[in-house]
Amino acid sequence: MLIHLSSWPEIDERLKSGALLSKTVIVPIGSNEQHGPTGLLGTDWLCPEIIAHAAEKGDDSLVITPTFNIGMAQHHLAFPGTITLRPSTFMAAIADWVSSLTRHGFERIYFLNGHGGNVATIEAAFAEIYADWSFTPEPWAERPPFVLKLRNWWDLPGVQKLCEDIFPTGHGSHATPSEIAVTQAGYPDRIKTADYEPKIAPFGPIRDANDYRARFPDGRIGSDPAQATPEKGQRIIDAAVPALIRDLTDFAQEVLPVA
Amino acid sequence: MLIHLSSWPEIDERLKSGALLSKTVIVPIGSNEQHGPTGLLGTDWLCPEIIAHAAEKGDDSLVITPTFNIGMAQHHLAFPGTITLRPSTFMAAIADWVSSLTRHGFERIYFLNGHGGNVATIEAAFAEIYADWSFTPEPWAERPPFVLKLRNWWDLPGVQKLCEDIFPTGHGSHATPSEIAVTQAGYPDRIKTADYEPKIAPFGPIRDANDYRARFPDGRIGSDPAQATPEKGQRIIDAAVPALIRDLTDFAQEVLPVA
Amino acid sequence: MLIHLSSWPEIDERLKSGALLSKTVIVPIGSNEQHGPTGLLGTDWLCPEIIAHAAEKGDDSLVITPTFNIGMAQHHLAFPGTITLRPSTFMAAIADWVSSLTRHGFERIYFLNGHGGNVATIEAAFAEIYADWSFTPEPWAERPPFVLKLRNWWDLPGVQKLCEDIFPTGHGSHATPSEIAVTQAGYPDRIKTADYEPKIAPFGPIRDANDYRARFPDGRIGSDPAQATPEKGQRIIDAAVPALIRDLTDFAQEVLPVA
Amino acid sequence: MLIHLSSWPEIDERLKSGALLSKTVIVPIGSNEQHGPTGLLGTDWLCPEIIAHAAEKGDDSLVITPTFNIGMAQHHLAFPGTITLRPSTFMAAIADWVSSLTRHGFERIYFLNGHGGNVATIEAAFAEIYADWSFTPEPWAERPPFVLKLRNWWDLPGVQKLCEDIFPTGHGSHATPSEIAVTQAGYPDRIKTADYEPKIAPFGPIRDANDYRARFPDGRIGSDPAQATPEKGQRIIDAAVPALIRDLTDFAQEVLPVA
Amino acid sequence: MLIHLSSWPEIDERLKSGALLSKTVIVPIGSNEQHGPTGLLGTDWLCPEIIAHAAEKGDDSLVITPTFNIGMAQHHLAFPGTITLRPSTFMAAIADWVSSLTRHGFERIYFLNGHGGNVATIEAAFAEIYADWSFTPEPWAERPPFVLKLRNWWDLPGVQKLCEDIFPTGHGSHATPSEIAVTQAGYPDRIKTADYEPKIAPFGPIRDANDYRARFPDGRIGSDPAQATPEKGQRIIDAAVPALIRDLTDFAQEVLPVA
Amino acid sequence: MLIHLSSWPEIDERLKSGALLSKTVIVPIGSNEQHGPTGLLGTDWLCPEIIAHAAEKGDDSLVITPTFNIGMAQHHLAFPGTITLRPSTFMAAIADWVSSLTRHGFERIYFLNGHGGNVATIEAAFAEIYADWSFTPEPWAERPPFVLKLRNWWDLPGVQKLCEDIFPTGHGSHATPSEIAVTQAGYPDRIKTADYEPKIAPFGPIRDANDYRARFPDGRIGSDPAQATPEKGQRIIDAAVPALIRDLTDFAQEVLPVA
Repeated sequence: MLIHLSSWPEIDERLKSGALLSKTVIVPIGSNEQHGPTGLLGTDWLCPEIIAHAAEKGDDSLVITPTFNIGMAQHHLAFPGTITLRPSTFMAAIADWVSSLTRHGFERIYFLNGHGGNVATIEAAFAEIYADWSFTPEPWAERPPFVLKLRNWWDLPGVQKLCEDIFPTGHGSHATPSEIAVTQAGYPDRIKTADYEPKIAPFGPIRDANDYRARFPDGRIGSDPAQATPEKGQRIIDAAVPALIRDLTDFAQEVLPVA
Repeated sequence: MLIHLSSWPEIDERLKSGALLSKTVIVPIGSNEQHGPTGLLGTDWLCPEIIAHAAEKGDDSLVITPTFNIGMAQHHLAFPGTITLRPSTFMAAIADWVSSLTRHGFERIYFLNGHGGNVATIEAAFAEIYADWSFTPEPWAERPPFVLKLRNWWDLPGVQKLCEDIFPTGHGSHATPSEIAVTQAGYPDRIKTADYEPKIAPFGPIRDANDYRARFPDGRIGSDPAQATPEKGQRIIDAAVPALIRDLTDFAQEVLPVA
Repeated sequence: MLIHLSSWPEIDERLKSGALLSKTVIVPIGSNEQHGPTGLLGTDWLCPEIIAHAAEKGDDSLVITPTFNIGMAQHHLAFPGTITLRPSTFMAAIADWVSSLTRHGFERIYFLNGHGGNVATIEAAFAEIYADWSFTPEPWAERPPFVLKLRNWWDLPGVQKLCEDIFPTGHGSHATPSEIAVTQAGYPDRIKTADYEPKIAPFGPIRDANDYRARFPDGRIGSDPAQATPEKGQRIIDAAVPALIRDLTDFAQEVLPVA
Repeated sequence: MLIHLSSWPEIDERLKSGALLSKTVIVPIGSNEQHGPTGLLGTDWLCPEIIAHAAEKGDDSLVITPTFNIGMAQHHLAFPGTITLRPSTFMAAIADWVSSLTRHGFERIYFLNGHGGNVATIEAAFAEIYADWSFTPEPWAERPPFVLKLRNWWDLPGVQKLCEDIFPTGHGSHATPSEIAVTQAGYPDRIKTADYEPKIAPFGPIRDANDYRARFPDGRIGSDPAQATPEKGQRIIDAAVPALIRDLTDFAQEVLPVA
Repeated sequence: MLIHLSSWPEIDERLKSGALLSKTVIVPIGSNEQHGPTGLLGTDWLCPEIIAHAAEKGDDSLVITPTFNIGMAQHHLAFPGTITLRPSTFMAAIADWVSSLTRHGFERIYFLNGHGGNVATIEAAFAEIYADWSFTPEPWAERPPFVLKLRNWWDLPGVQKLCEDIFPTGHGSHATPSEIAVTQAGYPDRIKTADYEPKIAPFGPIRDANDYRARFPDGRIGSDPAQATPEKGQRIIDAAVPALIRDLTDFAQEVLPVA
Repeated sequence: MLIHLSSWPEIDERLKSGALLSKTVIVPIGSNEQHGPTGLLGTDWLCPEIIAHAAEKGDDSLVITPTFNIGMAQHHLAFPGTITLRPSTFMAAIADWVSSLTRHGFERIYFLNGHGGNVATIEAAFAEIYADWSFTPEPWAERPPFVLKLRNWWDLPGVQKLCEDIFPTGHGSHATPSEIAVTQAGYPDRIKTADYEPKIAPFGPIRDANDYRARFPDGRIGSDPAQATPEKGQRIIDAAVPALIRDLTDFAQEVLPVA
């Protein structure tokens, strides 16, 4: 169930249905940023969207929000097409999404993330949100009526291992062949090629935008994305979809401890 | 040219091309909020996306960002599925989008808006962005190296008139048959029906979320959306596309006055 | 009843009186900004103050706060004497005024506005204030104990029509003869004259401060303010006063719907 | 020269005149808050306004902004009619006023304050404003092109002493007979009387709003305001006016050291 | 009881003990900033820490937080080693400390301050914290469950007088011999000497960082710190310790009025 | 060289000395939060302080700021004695520290961290700081004049391995025997004992404060801290000190790439 392609009475009915996943919602979240000489700028938000929508196709009990498509990408700003939120803005926006969803009665909010550079800020955002509840003085202190979970799509059980099996060398950490393969499976008419060297890009620290571009002139980190094919991407998607459904179901069923 | 389905070298090349629209960029912007008993929750961001993407299909010189899909919808929060940013968050996010795009050299940023409830906050955001430049003390005071423009898709020349011609009664101002028709043209497999009454919803002031739901129990304001059909939607799109291209071209060519 | 010329027991008594307007309060709000070669910098806050105070003179049941005299005028900053708040500051200040007044038990807060450039930010401020309530998760979600209303003085029933009747040409949208006439009626010893041309100033878009000054070198937009006289201003005031009292009374009597 | 009763060309001319006070501006600043059983709620912004305007009447070389009429009065919020800004809002607003005035070329900004409770936040605001400049890294670090000064009207040379001479007992620190006398001189038709006891109110610490009202049930601290008369108020004004002009002139003439 | 050298069960036990000081906590707070040619950069946070820890050694019923060691020192930023928070950051941090401590049940929070430049911002922070409670609309308005108190160590009863007796000339207001003596008593192996002139530094206004350095080239204001000795410092500490314990006990025992 | 026990001329001289580490500075940073039934509440800021100060004792070329002793500990707030900053406050404070240090000419700022829960927010803070530079539009875009580095003390080369060798079972991730051993070495008179069970605490997810306490009733995660001894702590310190000096030297010598 894609929220944006549903009507509000449909969402209302689902929330009140009592079904296992009725109060659990997936937020595909990523970033719009350079992905090397051949990767799509949308790679990091397209990947979780592709995987989440594929899962929903096979199992309509999933509820999925629109994709949160701009994240924390300040280090990529020296490459045209990158759009970023400052961490403080990103945190405020995540808080507002969570407030909106919990207002409706969603109790477990699952962020399926496509950008490693988002992780720190999303975790900080969760802590900022929880702090509103943690700061309530006794005797009013109580638990928030919701739980937040962050999961990178490559950390879904079995997925990272599969990616490394498919791409034993030159996987790297940015503009990786696995993420580019996933977008090729999703958008086979948008496959791009380019000459680049070295074949495998260097590694190094991530700092501000200008430093990044000086270290990684074409944007890649440690990767050789030309290895990507739509077929390899489809294999990754096929592995990620059931892993997502299982992971989400576990999250929905998790018993919360009581003090 | 959809930024998210392009690589950074493609955007770089376009920016340096010297073409008429090379430094102008469209941001489709909307909201994810209830649209009555039959409208899609995504209506307000799907409409500008549908129109902008249709325009780009016919004219690849347009550069289009990912869709800014969550806007200011606090008054719809009593209906499940609505997601909103607080105005302050919305303003911060718009500022970050603008900072990102102007960093790359885009000089004219055109927001194609799909939600009337966004207008006030987008205008406030523009003023907040400009204020950073306006506050620079003399003798350093100078113009920002960019210009911002907001255009609601229904205000594109000729479009509102067409909508009223197609729907002479029961157009209303929220969950209108014209916006629902546009989404039906874009997503013909997601057309929904429902019994509702009165046939034409009431009008009234917009305040907080609970007040809104009490006044407008099914979410509509002044509209009878059952009049929508995909064909009518396509007529609107077909009128909006050339109007958008002309309006954008005028914006790109506008000569800025010098003091 | 002007709050600042009253003692707190007087306000307390009024609040507890049970009178029709006892929990309704007027906030005159405007801006301090250039008004062309002859207009007073205070025009936009003096006008609503003049009208509101005139109304209070004839009907002591009105409760009026001090005038909120600085608003959103960043686009006028290239003209000396203009003072502006950034939109974010303006929103925070409006929220604090509202929190203060609702703390005392005022339930209907009526902003009588004198500056078109304030409208977007005031509306954004209202949404920001309401969002605090809208974000409360179920089952605690409830209505805020107050209602906010924005009314531009020229939108009081009949007033805009009268202004256009008095000034059929060269009314324009900034430094209009009608607003200048109102200040002339209020401050007849501060009437200024100047040679300017063209007689009727141009129209155009509003952007940052330097752009504004380049487009509108003497500050006027579309107006010929030399048509103003104190007598014409008094006619406008005389029409606005009863319209304000009726509009305010309607607001105080409005029945709020219950879901 | 009252900015709000001037046109922008008049301010422009003054700024460029080269006169001693041409780049110095007075901001009357205060608070709208309870002032005991008989004091006007506007006392703290009316007093600096009365004094500053009286000074300007005698010496047109003074440039005076509109009055900053809402300050930091959270501790008075349990009394109806009080309006406050949170300190963070107050600081942001002061920063915007300063940015606006320095944009025009004013170099020395003199805040004539009427509320002791404002002092801490105004000083914090000054430091916040200066910090923008202080944080500039070497080698760009430079002085801000303006200087800020805070002066309470009762701290103008000789004024506090005069107040104590006129009211040797029961002067107190809130709702003092001297401030009430100044407003009586300014608004002789708004003099109020009330029975209160004890004749001289108690002293005590200032904390949150509810604590304040419990300690000081009628709002006074240490004062017996019934001693006020318009004549005594005029004596205070007559002493404050020349002291203000001297103090302002000293400020305008102060030579800034160079490292 | 130093919180950071205790375990949480020890703090828990103390909070529940019912002892006189069990719900009162001391926060030593200061600044890290230049203190003239011989003073330690940490002087302003070391002094309250030295005094509070000395008090705790003699009376374990005191509960003391870690030292808040960075305060508001923007005016000292032209001297290397100074670290400051902007006032807005400082206020947010104080609010978070207070929220944390009141969450645990501490009801009276006593800030023992070592930096005059902190006073304004700490007072503004208190007001900001209280405002959250003061803004609660009736009928929910209630008192915060805690009380905040600021005490400069030199304002502890008898201490300022002792300092002036020990240093009748050249005490000054920054890099004073008394504060330097206290650090010499605490860190006798870190005593520094330097030639400086004039023997007694000048006085003057405090503005931005560059202005400060131009006025006070070696950082001192009005002081001759070479008079400091560890023995004199110990005398000051010996006077401050019992004064602190008495002052704290009075604060813990103060009966709060009820409206 | 401990900044707080130095004078500003000493820091000034060091900055200008041209020595290898003269423009590099260490910020010990941690948290004040519960550390199980026996751990000190200050553990996470004491550990980096102990290690950094030990390093400075052996090598005076190190420059060390005061310890940043309150971090992000909202999840520990259900245990008395914990003090936290919200992530947004923590980020603002880190930005101010960095602005202060870079104002003086420090070019490489090395955060030696003692709290895993700080990592996300510190990284978000770095990105927020860099974003100010990354957002500068072309052609002014340039690199910030400083580089930031975060290093957890246990991630210093060889240290984590040593900790696991010393504590092969029951090391866990919060209130670990290694961190407690380090504090025992630093504060041998503050060693605490307690009965607790299970001997090895459980693992689990980290969410809000109340959830944490329900999952981990005595505060430990996966650890058996009774294994700690001062001797083991000293071994860890002895390994960490040279690793820190090497790591810092590498950082100071790192050649920054130029685009």
